[in-house]
Amino acid sequence: MSRLDVFIDRMVSQRACLDFAIAETAALPGPAFELGLGNGRTYHHMRENITGHDIYVFERAIASNPASTPDEAFTILGDVMETLPQTLERFGATASLIHADLGGHNLKKNDLFARKVSPLIEPLLAKGGLMVSSDRMYFDALEELPLPEGAVPGRCFIYRK
Amino acid sequence: MSRLDVFIDRMVSQRACLDFAIAETAALPGPAFELGLGNGRTYHHMRENITGHDIYVFERAIASNPASTPDEAFTILGDVMETLPQTLERFGATASLIHADLGGHNLKKNDLFARKVSPLIEPLLAKGGLMVSSDRMYFDALEELPLPEGAVPGRCFIYRK
Ligand SMILES: C[S@@+](CC[C@H](N)C(=O)[O-])C[C@H]1O[C@@H](n2cnc3c(N)ncnc32)[C@H](O)[C@@H]1O
Ligand code: NI
Ligand code: NI
Repeated sequence: MSRLDVFIDRMVSQRACLDFAIAETAALPGPAFELGLGNGRTYHHMRENITGHDIYVFERAIASNPASTPDEAFTILGDVMETLPQTLERFGATASLIHADLGGHNLKKNDLFARKVSPLIEPLLAKGGLMVSSDRMYFDALEELPLPEGAVPGRCFIYRK
Repeated sequence: MSRLDVFIDRMVSQRACLDFAIAETAALPGPAFELGLGNGRTYHHMRENITGHDIYVFERAIASNPASTPDEAFTILGDVMETLPQTLERFGATASLIHADLGGHNLKKNDLFARKVSPLIEPLLAKGGLMVSSDRMYFDALEELPLPEGAVPGRCFIYRK
């Protein structure tokens, strides 16, 4: 497999999981969270497909395409290790959907970070809320769901509270 | 369509066109050229799938993933407007396959650049050689080919000398 093959599988899986999760959580009232804006492609996809929910974006340093840069009011700037606990105080357990794509090229580092950040993500979800991630997460009580059609095993993960 | 949708279509189309072009030009003896290295994903795909041909990479400033950075001997550094004419003197009309993904976010600028660079690319191809591009090109005498299965119209273009 080339890096192009791997990358296509990741993008296609992100979209399949997001589309599934957006449909599944449409009836929940709470906000959606995008952890890691990057270029802004998945954020743009969420903005185009999520209706009736605020979308907050968590990012250390905004460097997205101008077509997918969130309003300041919906940008939560800083390291998620600090901003997620602050967000729990602000919103409580209300999030309908959390998408995380925080990883870089180092798979080992990504896994270590997933272990560290999982306990900060878990309490933010509302009952029935979904979490979609490009890395395997380490949750106490969330249920891992089977992947929707089109998603490639190992390229994304879905969890339900 | 979200930016994620557009991006997936572009990546999938690049791969479909490259795979087609690699198979079609396998019997030609000349080198392959990658114009624009970027992250290096399509270069990596070419390296994994092209056998028996040298692959030269044209780039202004190398910023690729270490897993897909070409050897110095196969890197042609500089603005393609200057390096392509030098390459014609060095190699003549011998290229079996030329892939170009030189565009940025500004579609109008991409089109202007495609017009400028097309006459520098055309003479490099061997008879029977293929050119795959993410932008419509402006060639004098190359034939535009129908897209292979899986490629999305408008997301990539194939030309034959
Ligand atoms: C792979 S990119 C996200 C790409 C995005 N899904 C897209 O479609 O364009 C990961 C992003 O997460 C951000 N990030 C990584 N670790 C972070 C942290 N601890 N706190 C905040 N942002 C972080 C990085 O700055 C980077 O922009
Ligand atoms: Ni809704
Ligand atoms: Ni060959």
